[in-house]
Parts: sequence; C-alpha cells; structure tokens
Amino acid sequence: MRPLCSTAHHPHTFYTQHPFTSMHALLLENAAYVIGERIYRDASVYIEDGRICWVGTGDVPAGTERISARKCAVLPALTNAHTHLPETVLRGLCDDRVLMDWLNKYIWPAENKLTNEFAEWAALLGCAELIHNGVGFFIDQYFYANEIARSVLKAGIKALLCSSVFDGCPEGKTIERQFAIAEKFIREWQGKSTRLYVGIGPHAPYTVNDEYLARINEIATSKNLHVHIHLSETQHENAESRKKVGMSPARRLSKLGMLNRRALLAHCVHLSEEDIALIAGAGATVLHCPQSNLKLSSGIAQIERIRKRVNVLVGTDGNASNNNLDVLEELRTACMLQKYLFGAEAMPLQDAFSMISSNAAALGCNYTGIIKPGAPADIAVMPLEKPHLQPVHDILSNLIYSANGTDVSTLIIDGEIIMQDYRILRFDEGEVLEKCREIAQAIWNQ
Amino acid sequence: MRPLCSTAHHPHTFYTQHPFTSMHALLLENAAYVIGERIYRDASVYIEDGRICWVGTGDVPAGTERISARKCAVLPALTNAHTHLPETVLRGLCDDRVLMDWLNKYIWPAENKLTNEFAEWAALLGCAELIHNGVGFFIDQYFYANEIARSVLKAGIKALLCSSVFDGCPEGKTIERQFAIAEKFIREWQGKSTRLYVGIGPHAPYTVNDEYLARINEIATSKNLHVHIHLSETQHENAESRKKVGMSPARRLSKLGMLNRRALLAHCVHLSEEDIALIAGAGATVLHCPQSNLKLSSGIAQIERIRKRVNVLVGTDGNASNNNLDVLEELRTACMLQKYLFGAEAMPLQDAFSMISSNAAALGCNYTGIIKPGAPADIAVMPLEKPHLQPVHDILSNLIYSANGTDVSTLIIDGEIIMQDYRILRFDEGEVLEKCREIAQAIWNQ
Repeated sequence: MRPLCSTAHHPHTFYTQHPFTSMHALLLENAAYVIGERIYRDASVYIEDGRICWVGTGDVPAGTERISARKCAVLPALTNAHTHLPETVLRGLCDDRVLMDWLNKYIWPAENKLTNEFAEWAALLGCAELIHNGVGFFIDQYFYANEIARSVLKAGIKALLCSSVFDGCPEGKTIERQFAIAEKFIREWQGKSTRLYVGIGPHAPYTVNDEYLARINEIATSKNLHVHIHLSETQHENAESRKKVGMSPARRLSKLGMLNRRALLAHCVHLSEEDIALIAGAGATVLHCPQSNLKLSSGIAQIERIRKRVNVLVGTDGNASNNNLDVLEELRTACMLQKYLFGAEAMPLQDAFSMISSNAAALGCNYTGIIKPGAPADIAVMPLEKPHLQPVHDILSNLIYSANGTDVSTLIIDGEIIMQDYRILRFDEGEVLEKCREIAQAIWNQ
Repeated sequence: MRPLCSTAHHPHTFYTQHPFTSMHALLLENAAYVIGERIYRDASVYIEDGRICWVGTGDVPAGTERISARKCAVLPALTNAHTHLPETVLRGLCDDRVLMDWLNKYIWPAENKLTNEFAEWAALLGCAELIHNGVGFFIDQYFYANEIARSVLKAGIKALLCSSVFDGCPEGKTIERQFAIAEKFIREWQGKSTRLYVGIGPHAPYTVNDEYLARINEIATSKNLHVHIHLSETQHENAESRKKVGMSPARRLSKLGMLNRRALLAHCVHLSEEDIALIAGAGATVLHCPQSNLKLSSGIAQIERIRKRVNVLVGTDGNASNNNLDVLEELRTACMLQKYLFGAEAMPLQDAFSMISSNAAALGCNYTGIIKPGAPADIAVMPLEKPHLQPVHDILSNLIYSANGTDVSTLIIDGEIIMQDYRILRFDEGEVLEKCREIAQAIWNQ
C-alpha cells in the first residue's frame, strides 16, 4: 500500500541525544525471544542508520554500540491507536458519574482551564507514560495539536496527530477557530519530521454537521491526510443519527465520501452488518478502545467479527476516561472480551498482537510494527526475569496475558535509544511530574 | 464477628529475617497518602510488635526503624481471594482453546507431571508474584496444600489454604487419597501460625457428590474450617444441576447445610435471585474472578447486585486460566464490567477497594485489610513518582484505574518487611525463577 503521509526522509533537528552519525550501528544482543516475522529464540537484532539490518546471529562492524537483551523479549515498539494526550492531567478527576455529569461538572470545567503551556506539559507527561509502556507510535485527536507536536518531538516517539474540530464544545471556543488552528498546524508540521504525521480530527458525526464534514474532507483529500473521528460509540448516537438523517453514522460518512483508506474510526461499538461492509470495502481502519467503552457503559465492539474484514488497531482512549495508556493491558481486555462474546478460540495470540503492532503499517507513517530487515528500528525491550513473566511456555501469551506495559525497560525509535533501563533519556521526568502536579492543582483545586 | 479460625497468637519459627524482639517498632514516614479508615495526606504510620499503633504524626521511641514513604501511597496489603498457586508454572500453556481441549490436552497432562517438589517451587514462584503485586493475604484451593503451606511460610505472607477434594480428576488420583491428604494437612497445620489458615476445598458441586460433600461438611463443621468451592461458574453447570438434582448448585449447598459464614463461593457467575437470597441469608462470601470468567467465556457475574447483600472479595483465579496474580488489575476489570452492565455510577471507588482489602476481615484470619490502630500491620507501599500514577486527583482512582500491582515496592506483614524497594527479603528470587523454568521444561517440553 502506498504510504499516505509520504515525507522526504531527511534528518531533522529534534534530537537532543544520540544524533546519528552517517553510520550509526546498534546491536541488541542475545535476546531470549525476538518477536519478528516469526519468533526467534536466542537471537540478536542488528540496526544500521535507524533501520533493522538482520535478526539472528552474525558479525557486526567494529565500533557498533551494543545493548544486552539477555533474558529479555525484543518486540516491536507498540502502537496506541487512540488517545487524547493532554487529558493525562485529568487522570482520575471523575470515575463514577454518568456521561453528562462527567462532561458538564468535571471534564469541561477542567479543560476550560487548560492553557497552551499546560497542554504541552500534559502532553509530555503523556509521552513519558507512553514511552514507559513501550509505545513507539500513537494516534491522537485533541485540541492543542501544536503543543502535542512539540512534546512528541521532544520525547522522540512517532505520532499521527489529528487536530480536533467540533462544534459546541466549550474548550474549542468557535469551530472557525478550530479550523484555523488545524490548518495552521497542518501547514507548519506536515512533512517536517519522519516521526510526526499530521491529520485532522472531526470529533464525531453528531458534533460536526455535513457542511463542516465536507470542508474537513476537502482539506484531508487535498493534503492526503488521515481523518480521525469517533464513530458509533453509543447506541444513543446511532438512534439519533437514524432519527435526524435517516441512516447510520457510518453510512453518512460513506455518503460524504469520507470512508476511505485515510479514515480512522474510533470505537465502532455499535456497527450493523451494512456498516461493517461499508468500512471494509473502503479500507478504513477501526480503532478499538474496549476499556473506555466498558467504563463509560457504551458496550463491547464485536471486534472478532470486524477484524476478519477490517484493519483494526487497539487504543486506550484518553486518560480522563480510561485511566492509563498501557496498551498491552488494553489488548488483554480486548482479547478477554472477545472470548466472552465469541468463545475461547477467539482472538488467537498472533492476530491479537498485530492489533498493537503490525496493523499500523497500513497507515504509512514510517512505523511498521514489525521487526524485520529493512523496517525502521522501532523496538521495545522487556526483561523477563520477573515472577509474573515466568515461566515462558508461549512468549506471546506472556506478553498479552501476563505483562504490564511498564515492564518494558528500553525503547528504541528509528535506531535511537529514547529510554534505557527504565530511564527516559531525552528529558527530565521529575520536572514533568512536578509541573503536571502544579497544573492539576491549578485546573482543579484539590 | 467472631474469628472463624481462631489461633493462639504465639511467635512461630518460620521467620528467616527480621525476628521480632519483644518490642519491634517501625515508622513508615511521611507518606503522601495513607489509605486508612479515611484517606490521610502527609501522614506517617507507626507500628509496634506487628500492630498498627497510630496513623498521623507523632513522636516515636528512640531506636524505631524508619522507612521513608515520601511521595508514596501507603495502603493495606491487598487480598487475592481465589488462586490455584502451583498453576504458576502452567502460565501461558494454553490460551485459545475451548474448555475440554484446554483440560484434556494441556492442563491435565501437565498437572499429571507435577510432583510435590515441583508444586512447592511453583507455589514459591506464586508467592513471589503475589508479594510483587502487593498481596498480603490470599485464599487458595489446590492439591499440594502441604507444599503450598511451606512456601507461604517461607515467603511470609498470609494465606487461607483449602486442600482440594474432587472426584474423577487425573492429578488427584482417588478421592479417598485426597481426603487423606486434606485431613493430614488440617491436622498438621491448623493453629500453627498466625499467617496460615487451613480450610477444605471441594472442587465444585458437579465434581463432588452429596455423600462426599456431607463428609466434607462434617470435617469443616467439627474443625471450624472454611469451605472453598467453585459455584455456578457456567450456565452449563446450572443446567446440569437442575437436570440431575432439580435445583441450582447454591440451593443444593444450602440443603446440605453448607451455606454459612464459613462458605467461600468462587465465581458465582450465574446466580438467580433465590440463589443470592440464600447466600446473603447464610452470610457466605463470594469470590469474584472476572478475568477468568471472560477468558473462559463463562459470563460476567452481576457483582453490583450481589455485593449489596453479600460479602464479596475479588481474586485472579489461577495462572493457568488468567494469567497473572495482579489483583489491582483484576479489580479494575471488575469495576469496568459492572459499569458496562449497570452504568457509570456502579462500583464507586471506596466500595470497590474494599473488595481487595477490608472485606476479608470477616474471615477472621488475622488479616483485616484496614490501616487503623490495633490492626495487624499488613501494609503495602506504592511509590507514586511514575508517569502513569500522576497527577493524583483521587488516590483511590489512581490505585484502581491506573496502577499495576507491581507498582508496589515494599510489603509489610505483621510489621515484618518482606519486600523492600522491589526486592524480596526472605528468599532468592533468581533461584526460584530458574527452578520454575526447569519445571516448566520438564512438564511440557518446549
């Protein structure tokens, strides 16, 4: 598939550590398991200039940097397919309320006090959390895309950031203002880095009318951008859609020409057979957020049915509704729920794992989620010498059903080590935690 | 409530570290949060001779051992209410099979190769995992209760161990042999330690006939023991029960005089209104295992309804079916599922947290799950200076919805530090991991 967000591969200026020389070589040595195109035992991974050269055993040039992966699993840096990153500072603000109370009394008043500066720190805390959870690529939809972009490039991970557009939301002020911010964001950041991709994020069919959706579609088509939208999250949304426009939200998007390979559809909890056929035919991607859907009492998406025809990725949703960014745990929930719905044979390990790794390759964002020669070296290292990760009968089982994201100790993006032995290298985590505590105090007096 | 398993409080000989002097004093200093009878900010916890003396601020005697809890949450050591501890070596052996395949082709052949020695090492690995997950008290049902007891006392946590009895299971050999083992176990261990309580574990109503259940009830009544049984785990079980004996499994237990305060009922996924009334009236305890129930496609227990009339605890089930012993994550799943079933207001934080802490006090096992003066000092310390645990708007929310069990760094049982700064003090974890890898190889050639 043609990459959607093609970007010239040029070195950029955001590295604050490990600037590549013309020939930076790195060896991940003697891993117990490498989760590659197949599972390799006792293998090494050799990386040159940010790309994987080989997996196995072999000689490496003198001067190659070496990292021991002994008693570790080496896996693709994971993907978290649906976040609202600055919500990190709203974590735990409100858990036990119905949706409208949650929005009106807690989330919107708090979000109204977010400033650009706050959002940038909050996004950096989110990046820190993602890195500690082994995430190398995430897909976001939020206001403050510009501030999130700065944090992402500071943190060194990869992201597809979709600037939010919706009508009638207090923190967005006017929808025209949101269009202006989104278009400026796209202009300024598109093609600037191989780690940062831009898109546009109409909030949902029920918060953006046809006229605005058409305008968004025009922008997205002309600039070859992903469109990231919440879709059929609740039965109420579907019922209202049928009442107002006489069709499902998916069918409405299809009629507007917005179902295509660039469409990223978050939630999709309530899809009809016709909806699934439309989405499958269009080659769109579904972003499955099972924990958020449970917690907000929205339902359970029938992913076992959907995934057989549609590209599916798993995401955690934002910290205001979930409340962590651990996509391994999220996948575990996804698997268990599908087994509950469809029986114990649903969601076999390899298929499941692809939902937080290789299924993202179709997006064309210089992230493949695959450890194989030629792929970008986006790699997580997980030490297995812990009681909850032993013994290993099936390493994929231990990753999906036993591990926490925070078991990842080392994260490598484009061959650059951005976390080593649980320590983030590019910025001071303590400072970020402190700043975000102050922000939390400011937006919600405890 | 009168303790069920009253045991003389005398020092025992199982400590391998920190033997108490006649006056051992410990101060947990300057915690950011103490989860006590209410939530205390910036407080210390003072412990003397294994019991909590006060929570707050105050002077302590010279010579008191001090541990900093700065930027930490201090919480009750958690409870994991349903495990099969030696299954730890079967972790990940089989995930995607239907129940009879899972049992016949994987679990039973593997369990058949377990030996007493293997079971003891496997249980010790389980204890290590529990300790790392902040668990200070657990309730088990398995063969090899004798071997599990040794591991528990070596590890230093508290447990209620219920020796399994069931008919027609390959690894149990004959049911008479299982009775003999259970009775010997009870004789040898009852009253020997304030950290170890014994019970008896008829596997399930469908695997133990009325005659054997009556015999178990006689033993349990005469010795004042808890009876730990799987109940109404599947709809199939209920249907078979109605077909064979014309009543639900709960009603059958009630008729046999086995529903009382000593009854521990695991799963309870499919209970009628009448069943709930019987269980509530009897004062029995329900052990809720939501992840296992999802993964094995058994269903979702309606805990939000049950808990309003019945004492409920949360457990992970064994590692063969779940596959970790992280009871914080298990509680998170429990909460999310009840919100899915009953709306966002279900399972408020404080009520939820009691299901892995104070609800265990009713069992009378010298474990209260409460940080308050006079209670045994069973305490977990969790450093909060991590991206996924900040900021803190509501500490209970961060514990239930954001934390992993493995975030606990220090575990104190009866005032004795058994894990400090993520390191278990009483035994060599590396040796246990190595042994269990060998056992896994032996029971299932990889």
